[in-house]
Amino acid sequence: MKHQLFFLGKIKDRFIEEGVGEYASRLQHYTSFTITILKEKGRGRGKQLTAEEQGKLLLQAVPSGAAIVVLDAKGQQFTSEAFSRKIDQWEMQGTKQVCYLIGGPDGHAPKVRSAADLLLSLSKMTFTHDMARLLLIEQLYRAYTIKAGEQYHK
Amino acid sequence: MKHQLFFLGKIKDRFIEEGVGEYASRLQHYTSFTITILKEKGRGRGKQLTAEEQGKLLLQAVPSGAAIVVLDAKGQQFTSEAFSRKIDQWEMQGTKQVCYLIGGPDGHAPKVRSAADLLLSLSKMTFTHDMARLLLIEQLYRAYTIKAGEQYHK
Repeated sequence: MKHQLFFLGKIKDRFIEEGVGEYASRLQHYTSFTITILKEKGRGRGKQLTAEEQGKLLLQAVPSGAAIVVLDAKGQQFTSEAFSRKIDQWEMQGTKQVCYLIGGPDGHAPKVRSAADLLLSLSKMTFTHDMARLLLIEQLYRAYTIKAGEQYHK
Repeated sequence: MKHQLFFLGKIKDRFIEEGVGEYASRLQHYTSFTITILKEKGRGRGKQLTAEEQGKLLLQAVPSGAAIVVLDAKGQQFTSEAFSRKIDQWEMQGTKQVCYLIGGPDGHAPKVRSAADLLLSLSKMTFTHDMARLLLIEQLYRAYTIKAGEQYHK
């Protein structure tokens, strides 16, 4: 099963970029995954796209048939173990691809939220998108170490 | 009001160290705070201290009269706005110091949990202590930008 992470705009904090790189290199030992950076600004204009325009971009990027996970502070929370079981469940259902959509500063457009198979909340707290990206990839890595029954530091 | 963060052992991930440094430098424009690193290993033996031994160290380090916040996945969750209001509340109650205790891999000893004025959960998910340190300092910074009515990227 392939995990596809869709980010709006490049990572801004250098330390987050390093952290995402670190976990990406660990995660690739366990599963297939890609990170796709979509533009958050309009071409030429340099103007921030609206949540609707960003949503359209995100949904266009998702391959048909993929499970869609939308990150949303008000979504469902999982323990790391439960998230790992959720991945098992997708695999058992024959899901080929899971796409993770992280929104812009104004959150997701209603269209994106309603397209979600799962609204996933990492925390009730608000984080920067950059931090959410790091947390998501760390939890994916953690989920696979849990699946593999491996010891990973807490 | 002063915030005192107590960490068991040094930060292991270099990118987290950078991130903590980044937010520490931003946070100091808003409030007084310190980070204290306590040893997680026994002197000479190089052996990991038990949760009880670590708890004793943590509690000894806390000045009397300080509010004690113990980070615990099963604790109370706050939105970033509610956490900011919690800080306001401490200030209005005349709290001089708030101490944040982050546990070791085996979690906190019962003594530490029962000494807590607040059991704070950042997420239902399990993170590394390093990540919890980064999240905590980022949320402190965010709380102060919320208090100041400032715009800070999400």
